[in-house]
Amino acid sequence: MTVQPCRGVTENRSVLVTGGSGFIGSHLLFHLLDMGFRVRCFDRVKPPWLQSGIEFIEGDFTASQSLASALKGVDILIHLVSTTLPKTSHDDPQFDVMSNLAGTIGLLNQAVQSRVKRLIFISSCAVYGRPAVNPVCESHPTNPLFSYGIVKLAIEKYLRMYYDLYGLESCVLRLSNLYGEHQRADTGQGAIAIFCDKALKGEPIEIWGSGAVVRDYLYVKDAVEAITRAVLSDESGAEINIGSGKGASLNEVIETIESLTGGKIERRHLPCRPFDVEEIRLDIAEAKRRLGWEPSTDLRKGIQKVIDWMKTGKKYMRFHS
Amino acid sequence: MTVQPCRGVTENRSVLVTGGSGFIGSHLLFHLLDMGFRVRCFDRVKPPWLQSGIEFIEGDFTASQSLASALKGVDILIHLVSTTLPKTSHDDPQFDVMSNLAGTIGLLNQAVQSRVKRLIFISSCAVYGRPAVNPVCESHPTNPLFSYGIVKLAIEKYLRMYYDLYGLESCVLRLSNLYGEHQRADTGQGAIAIFCDKALKGEPIEIWGSGAVVRDYLYVKDAVEAITRAVLSDESGAEINIGSGKGASLNEVIETIESLTGGKIERRHLPCRPFDVEEIRLDIAEAKRRLGWEPSTDLRKGIQKVIDWMKTGKKYMRFHS
Repeated sequence: MTVQPCRGVTENRSVLVTGGSGFIGSHLLFHLLDMGFRVRCFDRVKPPWLQSGIEFIEGDFTASQSLASALKGVDILIHLVSTTLPKTSHDDPQFDVMSNLAGTIGLLNQAVQSRVKRLIFISSCAVYGRPAVNPVCESHPTNPLFSYGIVKLAIEKYLRMYYDLYGLESCVLRLSNLYGEHQRADTGQGAIAIFCDKALKGEPIEIWGSGAVVRDYLYVKDAVEAITRAVLSDESGAEINIGSGKGASLNEVIETIESLTGGKIERRHLPCRPFDVEEIRLDIAEAKRRLGWEPSTDLRKGIQKVIDWMKTGKKYMRFHS
Repeated sequence: MTVQPCRGVTENRSVLVTGGSGFIGSHLLFHLLDMGFRVRCFDRVKPPWLQSGIEFIEGDFTASQSLASALKGVDILIHLVSTTLPKTSHDDPQFDVMSNLAGTIGLLNQAVQSRVKRLIFISSCAVYGRPAVNPVCESHPTNPLFSYGIVKLAIEKYLRMYYDLYGLESCVLRLSNLYGEHQRADTGQGAIAIFCDKALKGEPIEIWGSGAVVRDYLYVKDAVEAITRAVLSDESGAEINIGSGKGASLNEVIETIESLTGGKIERRHLPCRPFDVEEIRLDIAEAKRRLGWEPSTDLRKGIQKVIDWMKTGKKYMRFHS
């Protein structure tokens, strides 16, 4: 159910993606380009996959000067920047707050001044903390366990405030655990990238706890599809879960990788971490209802794509390739 | 139902009050002193009511150096500091985040290092935003309308995180609208202080909207009693509403002042503000259950005390005077 290019809707509409040089951006920008949008990427580093049709502006999103020029003429802002990772954010929560939260408020101020019409914010299922029930729907209490989720939650609240005060329309997508091509194994971005990388190298896998913890793994191109639908929709003031709606344990992920690579993977178990919830799966009924979106790539098929990409030299690829 | 001094429990226990020189602190510190605690006040300015028995340390709570010495030997920390006011926090939310939120995280880090046993955080009913039902209980959704409430909410989440990660016990009190002796009329701290001040001067009162908005006004000494009970209790990880449990409109407040001062007050109506909720009243059943606390001063009696205090020259007074 990919959104097809529809130039009547998208032509002459300009989209800025902050933090666009990263994992999600590498898929999202091409998809937006294919859809007919005018596409601009704003990041500290130039992406290696940059090509004509995508404008790049180098800058730090916490510096208002460079933001102002990046936002010139922009209709829609997709805010992907995160200066921290979920599992490391609690090492320095002050940095998390000063960079991500204060930085995002600066971005909102600039967006209001630049008359941006719509903002899509990439939040996280980390805002829920330890689920009382699974699957988790959007009205579940929000008690994040670590700084990453606290900051995402605070940004969600500021988005509501900026709509009330300044009319800045926004849509919040609470993403589950993403995986897919272009995800780096070396920066701890995701378990599937790390596990596939280790499996292909024949190295042992380190697991915190027994491997029974259940996560909702979402293939990156499904996430990009959801973001695009949020851009095109007129939903505002909403927080919407974007996940597979299904759960898989770390052990199931490893078994799937084993069956796809044909080899046994050595597991090394480390002690549990206090901030690891036992299980989280997202209820994605709202995404279906509001955005007409649902994921189309199951876990086995998605992991196969990651393995294929790693085996063929980790080349960057266009969204529709 | 004032907590009586009980030296067996309080003796040799040291309490630090950050932001202790302000309105709440001016009542709280004397009450703690009377209870038998060793009392220390930490603030940027020396309070005019300082007297022997209360140790004062001058400093900015965002500077880790001065915090470290203030926290030396402290068992219980009561965090009253707020660098912003509810109704002005949205003018510069970045400042709110950098000072109150990042500053409080620094305080928590220092409290963990200094082995503080217990922390009482003064939060606000502003975390609820626009109530779906009244009275509001603690499990009500939290969608604050302005930065003040967003920052308070984020701090509540960090307190949970610091308990999970470092075992720092804490109790959060969500206070309603405070009023009472020592509240300043000139800094916009509270409607009752401003209205009484204007009434006694024979000046007109400015009201945003029709005056029908309903708030839960709590007399400051009742709030101090609740804080003291939270210090003495072993409730941890809890957020507890502290309010009168009753609602009064601005018009009712003005009518009460008129009947107590015996004169008609001129009202000047200004346009409504988008962040003013129509009505908020707190459900205080949890405070009764968990802290054995309930307020003892009704609105009329409390306003009479404010008027008496203003008429007799706004002198500082001991808690039990």
